[in-house]
Formats: sequence, structure tokens, C-alpha cells
Amino acid sequence: MLSFNEYLDMVNAAVAAIKYPAAPRGLYEPIAYTMSLGGKRIRPSLVLMACDAFGGNVTDAVAPAVGLELFHNFTLLHDDVMDKADIRRGKPTVHIKWNDNTAILSGDAMLTTATRYISKAPVPVMPEVMTLFNKTAMEIYEGQQYDMEFENRMDVREDEYLNMIRLKTSVLIGCACKMGAVIAGGDSNDASLLYRFGELIGLAFQLQDDLLDVYGDEKSFGKAIGGDIMNNKKTFMLIKALELSQGADRDELLSWINADNPDRAEKVAAVTKIYTHAGIREIAEKRISVYTEEALDTLAGINMTDEGKQAFRAFANMLMERKK
Amino acid sequence: MLSFNEYLDMVNAAVAAIKYPAAPRGLYEPIAYTMSLGGKRIRPSLVLMACDAFGGNVTDAVAPAVGLELFHNFTLLHDDVMDKADIRRGKPTVHIKWNDNTAILSGDAMLTTATRYISKAPVPVMPEVMTLFNKTAMEIYEGQQYDMEFENRMDVREDEYLNMIRLKTSVLIGCACKMGAVIAGGDSNDASLLYRFGELIGLAFQLQDDLLDVYGDEKSFGKAIGGDIMNNKKTFMLIKALELSQGADRDELLSWINADNPDRAEKVAAVTKIYTHAGIREIAEKRISVYTEEALDTLAGINMTDEGKQAFRAFANMLMERKK
Repeated sequence: MLSFNEYLDMVNAAVAAIKYPAAPRGLYEPIAYTMSLGGKRIRPSLVLMACDAFGGNVTDAVAPAVGLELFHNFTLLHDDVMDKADIRRGKPTVHIKWNDNTAILSGDAMLTTATRYISKAPVPVMPEVMTLFNKTAMEIYEGQQYDMEFENRMDVREDEYLNMIRLKTSVLIGCACKMGAVIAGGDSNDASLLYRFGELIGLAFQLQDDLLDVYGDEKSFGKAIGGDIMNNKKTFMLIKALELSQGADRDELLSWINADNPDRAEKVAAVTKIYTHAGIREIAEKRISVYTEEALDTLAGINMTDEGKQAFRAFANMLMERKK
Repeated sequence: MLSFNEYLDMVNAAVAAIKYPAAPRGLYEPIAYTMSLGGKRIRPSLVLMACDAFGGNVTDAVAPAVGLELFHNFTLLHDDVMDKADIRRGKPTVHIKWNDNTAILSGDAMLTTATRYISKAPVPVMPEVMTLFNKTAMEIYEGQQYDMEFENRMDVREDEYLNMIRLKTSVLIGCACKMGAVIAGGDSNDASLLYRFGELIGLAFQLQDDLLDVYGDEKSFGKAIGGDIMNNKKTFMLIKALELSQGADRDELLSWINADNPDRAEKVAAVTKIYTHAGIREIAEKRISVYTEEALDTLAGINMTDEGKQAFRAFANMLMERKK
């Protein structure tokens, strides 16, 4: 087994080696641009690590791993059009740098390119890999659909929110883990348990994102704190605060949500104070810790070498100690 | 072998039997709506006919055939967003009936749904079927990209145009023919020849579309004549007219192209007259006939039963005699 960063190096080399056709430039340049913006490359690294942990040939997993990263970046590209987001990883998004039509069509081409890479899985496991990938992709679209619908609702329940982030974020982490196991020819039950490990880590990861937007350190976080608060985004924090805050706190929270053009610093400070007062920080931290513990318990029950388990434990710890 | 209409009936039954998940409705209703609008269902019918002609089990080809029709309709859905088209098959397009975001996300889900259906090809041929499908999909995006780029160019050459329609329209007809042959386990060379037959028929089909927009009978055509002329669409007709018209005719053609808010009836009549004067109608008819003859010659060279060849000949004749 290698370290997570060594799998990451293999992924980065494989992503850098992707060959894009020269023409038409208007179709392929936006894909190359998107992939050049970087990112944590967590999902493809997990594919390689899972394949290795189950005794597979890591080389077999490289193309499908790249496919999963292409897919992830395709979803970001199209989400940025739908969310009218101007900046991604500190650079202009494709629909800003080019235009909406270019973003739509390049995204489509990126999805098919992702499918092509994933189709390079070894023939004996190809049907299972394709089934897993396509099912996951559908769930992610469902998650994005719910996320968009929640924007116009003030009555989003906690269970609805958790299901939305499970679909939009967690299933792809689970899919990455399982895909590596399947490519290695791992036992079907163990592969499913590793999927569950990834799914739980994904839930913890997204809740931590919600938490960091409020309580993160601006320098480490890499972007301005309070973006979710300013946008009234229905995060775990806001949903719990709407459920638990009372009296004057609740009235003030609602007035900030409905305020026209509020001062950013004032709104973020005031809403953060209400969250703190209602104990939302502790609730979120507790939930993150419960999901992480459940993930580690699931991992412990998998038939896998101690070295493999240690690698996934180290990954979970790394993710949970992140500041961004 | 069955008649083309009998394969079509099988396709229509299979399309009607597609099960869409109930939730989230905002994701799946636009897909069901798009598929309910009908269409000629040429591509999936060709998949079944080709499979049967090569002695395959037609049942094996039904799911991939439905997948190809889902894919075709996905491209129309996203093209309608990019082209800002309000009406498709006489009904409001998805981005008009819902909105752009719904059209983008439902389209993505439709592409993955198409891939899922195509993945149901029998396991032994699945890698080849997926490779063929993904390659074709990329070519179709390239065709749409060129089509959009041509809108802003007045110097589109005939060879560029023919390559664009080959990519945007013909390769999917070729792919449908070949996919059926591959699923049947047909000889690889024969499958490629049937691809070429489909590609040539596709070129003839698109040129006939260009011709019908000018010289078609409004009642049979099912939509108003002259839409391409009004939009200055770079069709075969306009490209040849820009190449071949001279003197006063050429000046008049350019002035109609640059006219602000011209009267529709006047512009269509004047441009049609210029086309007729430059002999564009005959040139287009000749080209259609050359492609059709080359397609039939290609068909004649395939190792296939006479009954099979007769079925594809009848299909080619049906397509070429159409008025819409």
C-alpha cells in the first residue's frame, strides 16, 4: 500500500496525461481548462487506494479513476451554470469565461468523456462498474434537483437536507470506494461496506463544509467565511437554527433572512451569534463525529488487511482535520 | 424479417414502457414529456432491423435501441436550449415549459439514462457497443459546436458544411445500423459497411431537409417553409448560392441576408428565386441522389440475406420519398 498522497500523485499524472482533440477548440478547451483548475482529487485517489487495499492491480483502476474525476468536474461545470456561480477554485467559471452554450455543450462532452474513461475498466468487471457509475450519476442529478428546489422553500426538514447532501455529495465518495474494490475483484459484501464507509465520510465532509462556512478560519478556509449565511443557503446550520432558535433570536434570524441588501459583516456576525446561542455549532460537531465514528466502525468490519484499514482511517482523519 | 413499421411498433412499445422514478418530479417529468412528443423513431428502428438482418436476437437489441432514442432526444433537448428554440414537434420545448436549469439538468439525466439503456447490451458485445456509442456521442457534440460556430461566419465552405452535418446527423444513423449488427454478432467488416450505408443515407436525409425547407409543400412538410431562409441558416442551399450566384443576384442575396426585419413572404420568395436561378435545386437534388446511390451500392456489397438488403433498400426509398 502507498500513502494517500502517492495515489494522489498517480491521479495527477494521469489527469495531466489526458489527450484532448485539437478541434473544435470551442468544445475541448473548456474541458481542459476545467481539469487544469485542480481540486483535491479525493475521489480518484480513493478509487486507486480501494483497488490496492483489495489486492487489485492499481494500473487497472487509473482510467476509471480519471473518469470519476472528469464526471465530478462535469457536475461542477453544469452546477455553476445553474447556480450562476462566477468563480470556481479562484478562477472564472466556464460560462463566464466563454458563455452558457459553451458550458452546456462542453459539459455534455465532459460527461461522455467521463463515461469513456470509466468504460476502460477491465472487461470482466465492466458491467458492474458501469452499473455503479450510472446509478451514482442519477443520484447526483437528483441531489442537485433537490438542492435547487430547497432554495425556494423555508420549510426544509433536517431529514430532507441530509438525504439531499447524501445524493449530491456522499454517494460519489461511496462510489469511488466501491469502484476500486470492484475493479480489484473484491468480495461483493466488503465492497458494499466500503461504499457505506465512503457515504458516511461524505456526509461528515459536507456537514463540516457547512460548519466551516460559519466557524472556519478565513485564511485556512481559502474563501470568505459566511457565504452560505449571506445567500440564505439552506445548510444544516440554518435548518437546525430555524428549528431550534426561539423568541427574539428566531425573529432576528428571520429578519436577517428577509433583509434587502444587508451589510455583509453585520449579517454574518449576527447570524453566527444566533447559531452559537442556539448551540448549533455543538450539534453540527456532534453529528460530524457520529458519522465519522460510524464510518470507522463500518471500516473495522470489512475483510481487508490491517494496512488497508489503516490507510482508510488515515484518510478519514485527514479529511476531518482539514480547515478548508 | 419484419417491415420497418413493425420494428417501429416494437420501439414505440418499448419507449412507452420506460419507467421513470416518481421523485424528484422536476427531474424526471421533463424526460417523460420529451419522450412523449413522438418523432420518427428512425434510429432505434434501424437498430432492431440491423440486428434482425444479421440473424441476431432482436430482443437483445431493444434496450440499446431505446437508449439511442433517449440519446437522440437528449441532444434535441439541449440543442433547443442553446438555439433558444421555443417549439419542438408542435409543443413547447422543455426550457420554455419549465426553465433553462430544468432543461440542463434533465438533459444530463437523460444522457445518463440513455447510457444505462445502452449498457444493457449483451455482456459479450457490451464493450464494443459502448465504444461505438461514446465515439458517436462525441462526434455529435462536435457537429453541434461547428453548427453554432457557423452561425457567425459568412465564409462556410461546402466541405465544412458537409462534415458538420455528417457529425451532427449522419453518424448517429450509421451508429444505429452498426449497433444492431454488432449486437447480432455480425462480421466486423459487414457491420462497418452498414455503418457507411447509414452515414450516407444520413447525409442525403439532411440535404433533403435543407431542400424541403425551400421547395417543400407546406402542408406535407408540417411546418412553415422558409424558416432556414428567414434565419440566414448556413444550409447547403445558402452555401452553394453564395458560391454560385453572380452579379445582381448575388447583391440581392447579400442584401436580404443583411436586411433588418424583412417581410417574411417577400424574403422567402426572393431568395428562393435566386436559388432557382443559380440552379441550386438541381445541385441539391443531384447530390441527394448521388449519396443515396452510393449508400445502395455499399449495401449491395454487404454479406447479408437478400431479405435483409431489401429491408434496408425499402427504408432508404421510404426516407427519400418523404415530404417532411
